[in-house]
Amino acid sequence: MKIESIQNKKIKERTKLHTKKERDKTGLFIVEGEHLIQEAIHANVLKELYILDTIENPFDFPCFECTQSVINKLSNQVSNAKMIGVCQKQTYKNDNYSKVLLLDDVQDPGNVGTIIRSAYSFGIDCIYLSNKCADLYNLKTIQSSQGALFHLPVFVCDIKEKIKQLQKKNIKVYATALHQKAKMLQEIVPENSFAIVLGNEGSGIKQEIVDSCDECIQIEMNQFESLNVAIAASICIYYFQYNKK
Amino acid sequence: MKIESIQNKKIKERTKLHTKKERDKTGLFIVEGEHLIQEAIHANVLKELYILDTIENPFDFPCFECTQSVINKLSNQVSNAKMIGVCQKQTYKNDNYSKVLLLDDVQDPGNVGTIIRSAYSFGIDCIYLSNKCADLYNLKTIQSSQGALFHLPVFVCDIKEKIKQLQKKNIKVYATALHQKAKMLQEIVPENSFAIVLGNEGSGIKQEIVDSCDECIQIEMNQFESLNVAIAASICIYYFQYNKK
Repeated sequence: MKIESIQNKKIKERTKLHTKKERDKTGLFIVEGEHLIQEAIHANVLKELYILDTIENPFDFPCFECTQSVINKLSNQVSNAKMIGVCQKQTYKNDNYSKVLLLDDVQDPGNVGTIIRSAYSFGIDCIYLSNKCADLYNLKTIQSSQGALFHLPVFVCDIKEKIKQLQKKNIKVYATALHQKAKMLQEIVPENSFAIVLGNEGSGIKQEIVDSCDECIQIEMNQFESLNVAIAASICIYYFQYNKK
Repeated sequence: MKIESIQNKKIKERTKLHTKKERDKTGLFIVEGEHLIQEAIHANVLKELYILDTIENPFDFPCFECTQSVINKLSNQVSNAKMIGVCQKQTYKNDNYSKVLLLDDVQDPGNVGTIIRSAYSFGIDCIYLSNKCADLYNLKTIQSSQGALFHLPVFVCDIKEKIKQLQKKNIKVYATALHQKAKMLQEIVPENSFAIVLGNEGSGIKQEIVDSCDECIQIEMNQFESLNVAIAASICIYYFQYNKK
């Protein structure tokens, strides 16, 4: 089926998916580009495929052929896009995760996506986001995750409550925070189960949340005392998972 | 002195600094926001300061008071900026650096800036960029570096030539690249001097450059085999500098 008008009812509906409100309402979200669409097909979440009428459909998945103006209407990019996928949000059973990250108000979608990418590559089981974190289905989050969000359970929840639950299961919860009593990362002897909390780009982890954690960790630095939050998260996870002492 | 017109000759001149060509020609570049301007003053590179006429100058540095339209003209941001600094590029003696990074065509300014930020925090001496890397004085590079680029020597040069020079000084050069002979990062026993090469976001390090390195290193991963280049760089530097075995 070919779609030539940006007034097409379906196109008008789908364009609304650029807002969080519509994504929350419908349980759908948009991905752009061949790599992410391929990942979405792999993960069995692709629902609809829109492809520019001048190119071949590279996927084994039926598509709507669209004119460039229709594709541009669906796209969030400045330059001409070629293909757009509409995906269904995944649901996960929230049960026995034992290597987890908790993000307290990490606001940049690029940071949230990059953390998801590293977390999945390094074998984290699950990520919990506070409700002021960047939206998981923001296009920038999805792009920075490079599709890892199709594979890793991510939940939005009350971080403080979640920390209590983890502690009840005897999972030690670490806050990445400058603190009088903070241990340097190299002093930590990680166990098989762990939870690591990362905080907001500007203000870090909220004090009451730091206070509720079992231990504070600080990454060694020579000077400047400044690391991007996705860098800090990745260094901690890598250390917890692969450090051989 | 107050500047009220976007036709002001100096404003028209300075606005050109949004292009790499003008930055290269003049040796000047623009920074935005209080934090970066403060860092520029610290580093003694601030030349001119433009501040919105409705706010107080928070610095001990003379400023041009400007209307919002003049500030917006100088700014690269979408939302209303409040202060703009014009800085002088720094020059460094290119001599005895012994803990260095080399970036082969890292194209995203956010990645280059984040790498500079981590490198400075973790005690790297100097960074060499290939000439296809993102421009060091691109506003996004500067912002992601959080001002670290005011403190760390960064040179644009021929990476292959630089590798030869480092090797002549008995500095071991490591390529971060998937390779049959690659060692896992945890197997590496770092020396005091080292050079680490990172590659392009899509295609990695060029083969001829990989071939000229002394060793290939691969970061341990569970799955997915995908890491952002700034994450990979930061994990390697952290390991080389702080791993206690």
